[in-house]
Amino acid sequence: MPVHLTAPDAATLKPVAGITLGYAKAHIRKPDRKDVLVMQLSPGTRVAGVFTQNRFCAAPVTLCREHLAAGNEIRALVVNTGNANAGTGEPGMQHARETCDALATLLGCQAGQILPFSTGVILEPLPIERLVAGLPAAVAAQRADGWLDAAEAIMTTDIVAKGASRQVMLGGKQVTVTGIAKGSGMIHPNMATMLGYVATDAAVSQSALQAIIDHAVNHSFNCITVDGDTSTNDSLILMATGQAGNAEITESSSEFEALRAVMTEVAVELAQAIVRDGEGATKFMTIYVEAGKDREECRKVAYAIAHSPLIKTAFFASDPNLGRILAAIGYAGIADLDVNAMQLYLGDVLVAEHGGRAASYEEAQGAAVMKEAEITVRVVLNRGSAKATVWTCDFSYDYVKINADYRS
Amino acid sequence: MPVHLTAPDAATLKPVAGITLGYAKAHIRKPDRKDVLVMQLSPGTRVAGVFTQNRFCAAPVTLCREHLAAGNEIRALVVNTGNANAGTGEPGMQHARETCDALATLLGCQAGQILPFSTGVILEPLPIERLVAGLPAAVAAQRADGWLDAAEAIMTTDIVAKGASRQVMLGGKQVTVTGIAKGSGMIHPNMATMLGYVATDAAVSQSALQAIIDHAVNHSFNCITVDGDTSTNDSLILMATGQAGNAEITESSSEFEALRAVMTEVAVELAQAIVRDGEGATKFMTIYVEAGKDREECRKVAYAIAHSPLIKTAFFASDPNLGRILAAIGYAGIADLDVNAMQLYLGDVLVAEHGGRAASYEEAQGAAVMKEAEITVRVVLNRGSAKATVWTCDFSYDYVKINADYRS
Repeated sequence: MPVHLTAPDAATLKPVAGITLGYAKAHIRKPDRKDVLVMQLSPGTRVAGVFTQNRFCAAPVTLCREHLAAGNEIRALVVNTGNANAGTGEPGMQHARETCDALATLLGCQAGQILPFSTGVILEPLPIERLVAGLPAAVAAQRADGWLDAAEAIMTTDIVAKGASRQVMLGGKQVTVTGIAKGSGMIHPNMATMLGYVATDAAVSQSALQAIIDHAVNHSFNCITVDGDTSTNDSLILMATGQAGNAEITESSSEFEALRAVMTEVAVELAQAIVRDGEGATKFMTIYVEAGKDREECRKVAYAIAHSPLIKTAFFASDPNLGRILAAIGYAGIADLDVNAMQLYLGDVLVAEHGGRAASYEEAQGAAVMKEAEITVRVVLNRGSAKATVWTCDFSYDYVKINADYRS
Repeated sequence: MPVHLTAPDAATLKPVAGITLGYAKAHIRKPDRKDVLVMQLSPGTRVAGVFTQNRFCAAPVTLCREHLAAGNEIRALVVNTGNANAGTGEPGMQHARETCDALATLLGCQAGQILPFSTGVILEPLPIERLVAGLPAAVAAQRADGWLDAAEAIMTTDIVAKGASRQVMLGGKQVTVTGIAKGSGMIHPNMATMLGYVATDAAVSQSALQAIIDHAVNHSFNCITVDGDTSTNDSLILMATGQAGNAEITESSSEFEALRAVMTEVAVELAQAIVRDGEGATKFMTIYVEAGKDREECRKVAYAIAHSPLIKTAFFASDPNLGRILAAIGYAGIADLDVNAMQLYLGDVLVAEHGGRAASYEEAQGAAVMKEAEITVRVVLNRGSAKATVWTCDFSYDYVKINADYRS
């Protein structure tokens, strides 16, 4: 069961002026399932994206990159679940192009103004006829308040639909930021196997939007992991429709940091929701590494801990078998790490220092923390002033069950 | 259950002239369990070792390195299970020294001539009194044919005792090579969490023995993984008593390659046994990556596949969800990998080429291979002539169960 996560109420996901969303049940993989989403953007909407670093990236990812790189004015996004259109070679590229062609015809724009996304099983041909056949219904069903339906339409092994919304005053105007995301396995930096869409009605320059997405992704989706796998389809898209009536925000605007903060906040909430709904998750863990030489080494230590199946199973069992954390710190790849100089905390409890168990530590303290559903592991390296945070979940029987059964 | 692995028959583990082994039940962690092993070496025995790269290495590992670096003539090894004496700070170092002192007194040698080893739970104080109290019984119980008992005495979560033996003619003399190992979780290169001891009665120079261990470890224990965790205590020791009566083998001897081959063969059998007995293993997988630019990139790809929980659970389920393998190849870290140039085989079946599913591939073929207990995944990168092999196992419910319950 997801850890402290419930689906958002439809009313909490505020419409973003200039964006409408509609879904269809196109039987991409299974019948009677919302599996195609169309998100239409008003003219002039600015769009920025970041995508998976996987060399085996999916065909739609390649096409998204092309359409954004060309500087096209993006008019719609289309997402299908049930099939990732990855590992599908040249036919997969053709299918992604056909999807864009078909939606462009329906919307009266160019194919290059569409961004396509797919998520689901890899290495199987996309059922392009069913996808295209589903588009008219999705287009017709569009509503401004369709965000919760949209969040549901992009789910795969997710148990809970993921959405977040904020409203703030910027430059004297009320600005809305609403986002949805999906993903629960194959979650890793660069990035989570996830799709994320965060929209605002604020007017933002293209370069400011790019700066915001770089900051937001590095503090949200690139700080989470479920199983260390990096997917072929990861995509995060930021959209700014410019309909809030504010003066365009640039990187030198006084409102820039406030907008970046609120968009990052929505991205963090979505990213954490992905971990809370991690496949089989029963615990939500924050791995906080501080006093490192640089952020990179802090991240190495945090990810060594977050990826260790031994540690993740111990958390599942609520077993304070904390030596496994020391072992992970030791193999994280800091060649000159002085293990005698660092401290390890579980919650507020000092567990280890001087290269061994802290004199004050008693197992009952560790056991008490381990029983919580939300646990912070804190490592103080005492060799600098950098820090990093990673969010992850535990590793349960259900993780194995879900992934052993996923296709069946 | 271990995959095609049964404990060796006592008679198949041939004694090595110059070595005797004895165990005791010292109640290190649990009662009535063989948990202390003493292995005594005749004077003049040459010893070489390789150890974990983990910065949080255990106290006995530090002491082993000291005693070997000093060039001391090693006269005995002592191993305890139930407690790793890792993450134990300065008291841990004192306990390791006390262990050597106590055994040296019993054997009439110097403490610096003892190599100590520990395996078990990390971060808990070694019960040094019980360990020392158990030594006289272990010393008294020594026998030349004690190898199977010794293999049993070093087990932790292992289900099956691991040993292998070979006899060959070298320089007109019969030479014996016998080894034992333990380990089933925290298995990873550099090295497996494992203890391995391989002995021969051949006469070998110290530098030749060092060359043999470097070769043997790179082709055996450094090619396996169960869960990607690198332990604090990994150690592999090679011993050569020189009692077979052959002329001393140096690196320029005509017998050098033959001895290296047979010692490597024993190491490979032990390393594979560790994977076959991997925690919860139901499948034994050989990941073979060829036609890469260099061995390092081949190993990156092989380990990306071998470490992926998504792939390991799919193998557990016998589900040919092979897109997950493409995804792992894609995120293995080869920045300029051309995914359209490579091929993926499952057993003898061509699964993917030209960036997607092979035209000839049918899922029934993949399903048939997945049902086997031993499966080869072959990746042909088509960008060079290097290759690498990694052995691993699948990821089952029982892996979670074992690691959730290990301390209880």
